[in-house]
Parts: sequence; C-alpha cells; structure tokens
Amino acid sequence: MEIPALAWLDPPEGPAVALLDQTRLPAVTSVVICHDVPALVTAIKRLVVRGAPMLGLAGAFGVALAAHRGDDVTEAAAALAAARPTAVNLAWGVRRVRAAYERTLDAGKNDSDAKRLARAAALEQARSIQAEDVAASAAMAAHGLAFIPERARVLTHCNTGALVSAGEGTAFGVVRAAHRAGRLRMLWVDETRPLLQGARLTAWEAQQAGMPYSVLVDAAAASLFARGEVDVVLVGADRIAADGSVANKVGTYGLAVLARQHRVPFVVVAPASTIDLDTPTGGAIVVEQRRADEVTAFAGCAVVPAGAAAYNPAFDVTPASLVSAIVSERGVAAPPDAGNLRVLCTDSRPAAARHAPQAAAIAVHVER
Amino acid sequence: MEIPALAWLDPPEGPAVALLDQTRLPAVTSVVICHDVPALVTAIKRLVVRGAPMLGLAGAFGVALAAHRGDDVTEAAAALAAARPTAVNLAWGVRRVRAAYERTLDAGKNDSDAKRLARAAALEQARSIQAEDVAASAAMAAHGLAFIPERARVLTHCNTGALVSAGEGTAFGVVRAAHRAGRLRMLWVDETRPLLQGARLTAWEAQQAGMPYSVLVDAAAASLFARGEVDVVLVGADRIAADGSVANKVGTYGLAVLARQHRVPFVVVAPASTIDLDTPTGGAIVVEQRRADEVTAFAGCAVVPAGAAAYNPAFDVTPASLVSAIVSERGVAAPPDAGNLRVLCTDSRPAAARHAPQAAAIAVHVER
Repeated sequence: MEIPALAWLDPPEGPAVALLDQTRLPAVTSVVICHDVPALVTAIKRLVVRGAPMLGLAGAFGVALAAHRGDDVTEAAAALAAARPTAVNLAWGVRRVRAAYERTLDAGKNDSDAKRLARAAALEQARSIQAEDVAASAAMAAHGLAFIPERARVLTHCNTGALVSAGEGTAFGVVRAAHRAGRLRMLWVDETRPLLQGARLTAWEAQQAGMPYSVLVDAAAASLFARGEVDVVLVGADRIAADGSVANKVGTYGLAVLARQHRVPFVVVAPASTIDLDTPTGGAIVVEQRRADEVTAFAGCAVVPAGAAAYNPAFDVTPASLVSAIVSERGVAAPPDAGNLRVLCTDSRPAAARHAPQAAAIAVHVER
Repeated sequence: MEIPALAWLDPPEGPAVALLDQTRLPAVTSVVICHDVPALVTAIKRLVVRGAPMLGLAGAFGVALAAHRGDDVTEAAAALAAARPTAVNLAWGVRRVRAAYERTLDAGKNDSDAKRLARAAALEQARSIQAEDVAASAAMAAHGLAFIPERARVLTHCNTGALVSAGEGTAFGVVRAAHRAGRLRMLWVDETRPLLQGARLTAWEAQQAGMPYSVLVDAAAASLFARGEVDVVLVGADRIAADGSVANKVGTYGLAVLARQHRVPFVVVAPASTIDLDTPTGGAIVVEQRRADEVTAFAGCAVVPAGAAAYNPAFDVTPASLVSAIVSERGVAAPPDAGNLRVLCTDSRPAAARHAPQAAAIAVHVER
C-alpha cells in the first residue's frame, strides 16, 4: 500500500485531512483532500473513507482539524460523530480528541497560549490513536493466528485490511499473518454487494500481497460451506454490544448461521474500541439504512425498473451465540460473553505498548 | 408480458425459434432469432433463454427446428441436451420431441411422406409441452397458494415468472396468485448476483403486475429473517434428485438454512419434469461452473484487479431436510421424500388436462 488511507497534511496554506478515495479503487487511485469538517463529513458519508478503526481515525483527525482551523470544536465533534450511526469507533475517536483538546484548554485557561496548546494536544491525541491502531493490528494478528489451522481455507466478507486501519487491518491482518506463516491455502473473498468492498478492495490487497484468493458472489458462500471448503470465517465489526452481539457489514449474519450449521469457527476481529458497553444488546444497535441507488444501479447503469424500491441496510447484527470468538488487541473473548468482553475493555497493557511508533509519512497525490 | 420468452416462427424463408433476450432486459427489449440449432445452443449457453421449464421448451422446439431443417436430429438433440448440464428439463424436452419424431418416422417407414409426418409430429409434441406448461403453471399456482398466509411477506430468489414458462411461472406464478387473492403484503426480491435475474427480471415482472416489492442484495436477506419480516420463501428448481435434494440458482441453499433457523416455510415450486428419479441424490447433481467474468466484471467494467480468480457456480444444492414442500402441477410433496416424489412423477391427470389451450401467438421485434 503506497498511499495511506488517511493522512494529516500541514501545508503552508493550512492543515487538511487527505483520504485515499475508496469508492474508486482499484480502477482509479485518487486522494480527496478535506480542508474542513463539512468536507470530511461528506467524505465519510460517501464512504470515501470507511471501516470501523479507520472511521475512528477520521473522527479523531477531524476534531484536530477543527481545532487547528479555530472552528467550534463542540459543533465539529457532533457533526463528525453523527456522520454514520453504526460504527462506534467514529464517535469514540471524536470523543478522545475532543476530551484532550478541552482538558488542555481548561488547564491553560490563564495562559495566552491555551488555544495553541489545545490544538497541539488534539493533534497529538489523534496521532496517538493512529499509533495505537498500528500496534493493535499487530496484536490482533498475533492473537488471531491461533484460529488458523495449517492449509487453511479462510472466508472473509467486506474489507478489513490496510484501508481500514493505520496498520495491516483487523480480520485481514490475521489473514496476512496466516499467509506469512505459510498457512493460507485459499482466501475466499465475498464480493460484498452493494458496494463491492470485497471484490474491489480485499481482492486488491490480496493480489498485492501475493495470496491465493478467489472472489465469489455473496450468495455462493453457502455452497462453499456445503462442499466443506471453508475452515474458518474471519470478519471485522462495526459495533459490538455488551451482550457480544456483533454489528458488521450486511451479510455477516448469514455467514454466521452457515458457519454454525457446518461447525466452522466464526471469528470476529476488532479493536477494543469497537466494543460498546453502553449498547446493552444487539437489538439496541442502530443499523444505518443507505440509499436505494446503491442497489438499484451499478457502475452508473440502472439494473432495476424505474421506480423500484430497495431495502438497503448497511449492516446486520449477529448474536453472540453464533460467534466463536472475538479477537481484540488485548486478547480473545471466547465465548464473547458479557464478562469476557468487559475484561477486553479494561486496558491492562503497559504504558509503553500504548505508544508504538507511527507509520511513516508517505507522499500522496492530490485531487481537488 | 407482450413478447413471449420463446416463439416458434414459420416465415416463408424457413422456420426459426425466436427468443426474448433475457440478458438485456429490462433496459433493452430485443429478440434473438435462431435459424438453426447451433445458434439456439449458443443462445442457451449465453442465457438469452433460461429457467428450468423454459429450457424444456427451448430443447423441445430446438429438436423440432432440426427436424424441419432436415438436419441430423440425433446430433441436434445431443447438442441441445448438453448446452447446459444442471436443468434436467432441457434434456427432458429434447427427449420427448426426439422420441415423437423417431416414433413417427419408424411407423411411416414405407411412406414417402414419413419425414414430413415426423417433422409435423415433432412440432406438435413441442407445442404439447408448451400447452402443458401453461396448464402446469396454473396448477402450481393453485397448489402453492395454500402456503401463503394473509398479509404475506414472501421472499424469492432469481426469476421464476413468465420468462421461464409458457404460463405465469413456477414460484412467481404462486406469487401472482397470492397477489390476485389479496394476500401479498410484500415481495422481497433478491437481486441474484451475478446476473441479477431478480433485480432485472423479477422486479420488472413485479412492477408490471403492480405488486408491492422491494429489491435487496442477496446478503441482506439474512437480516430480513432476523427482523421477522419473511413469512415464506418461494423458489423454483433446476433439478430435483430422487432423494428430494433441490438444485437451484446459487444462493438458494443459504436461504434454506436461514429459513430453517427462523422457522419460516421454505417452498420449492417446480413442474414434475424437474424431478429426475435417475439422479439418486443431491451429490450426484452436476453443478454448472460458469465463467469468472460474470463475477469479475459488470456492465463491461472490471470490478476486481486484473488476473483475479473467481468461484462461480451457477447453482447450489439444498437437501430435502431443509425443504418444507415441493409444489408441482400434480400436487404437493410434503415432506419431499422419495415416496412422495415418486407419486408426483406419475401423471394421473385426465387426458383433457394434458392439452390446455396454447398461449396466443404474439408479434415480435426481430434482432439479427
């Protein structure tokens, strides 16, 4: 991956958040530059940037951007947190940076430099989240590898790699580790309609990594299970409720039911920031309904009759009873019950581990 | 439906089989004229014509076409029967017309008119199959209606209406009957990747019929079950083995697993010609693997990286244990076990019922 999914730019004309446009990959590689929070909110809604951990970073750097511009940080934070309702990481990233900003502002209220210091604290907090994300990816990959047998045939859904994380990703990070360990016989890539994040993005990452992989339409996964060609299912998550229910890309729940039917382990890989103890059950998770035209058109062509209605939830919810394990950077919850999840939400790592080195800055192309 | 999916043409310059091009609907309405069997075989392989009962008609009229042209009927029959491997109706239609042709030829071997009589017998047999198909649709609709509750929310997959039958179709024929009876609250239409027969064809038929319907990506069906928004699943079949296993469009098996998980009736609607007692089990059904580019490109645009492999089975196999009932024109097999299926394979209808009136001939547009 030469161009990072998200980068902080600080050119002379003012700071900006640069996003690799995931809606156009792999056909077109372009970067969207967001000079203010409204532009970033639009990009988040359009899925220019997506994936739970990366949405956390987008929210975090968005608040830092508002602070640097001298915008109303409270207002910016609210707009960012509301851009998409399901991935809890977005609001979490926003909250952390906003808190760092306000803490510094309060502490320095008698200091003429308070605003400057608060701006710096906001950016430093966003960069910490980014660094933690790199470390979390590595830790999740290490923990997740325990679920990958030799000569594994892994099925995955949507995209969970370097485009959704400052590191190598969540579920896809585990796939990469399995590949490096010589255990990956086949990666089955669900195309993931409607927006084809599997076919467009996961296949692209798999190809760049030289993995053995095959793309399939989502409905063909069932036949792979029936033929005994899936050894483990690895997916990410957008929000995990306190009862262990997992909201993730629509189609995940169907895979979980099939995995149970065929006694195949179903493993969710997600950073602890995805666990939301304030959401008691899966039923309480708000599932984003997206526009009909994601379903009714494809590459600009209408595929249904004019006026057709569409049901287009972005996510579904898988009950904990169908999840074999939740792998986070802090360890594994198996079974993913309330008690095990609570343990994962308590950061018991040494302080040093919370400040892993940042990803190196990389030049980006610019599209305005 | 103004233009029939298949029509026999007998213009002065020689007979032909006209096919409404289902690969281009609904955006473009065009007809492919097949003047010989190789053209028809190509059209069948390209899915210009598709759906189990309609493939039976295509095979039947194809043999009649060979007979009328004076081609080698044995050779033509073999080529037609081999055009697609899974739908048993294709070989069945071919066999019936070939037998009628050969029977007449043998009976008239001392008659100078034997060839002419045999040609006429072949066409008459194909027309009988067409007439039976109209009657079978009506009978399946009547039997199937018993599975539709008041205010039913019906989920269907692929396309099973007037495009796959000389009548109103198999599963979709039941949906039409339910709509007429005022029982259809919602038809959930799986888009049915890769070729979108649901989004393109079923949605079009539903819209023309004025039904309440909504299109969804295949992977979103699971969330409908989870939300309790499906009362019954209705699908067609391409081949039913003697043990009641059902081969149908890829994705059907996954729906059957979900239906069982949520205690929703899963009903297969198919004419008795789909039941193949010579195929003992589901495992013995040959599943057609189709070209990767059905998955990897869309409307001419590549959606995956160059060189990506794809797994693209056209069908999957649902075990009888997950099927609530098989509805045929001769009645219902519930459960669809070997004994009940055998009963359906014995035609006990009065002779009159076997010769229902033909669908009226309709003018067609011609594309060469």
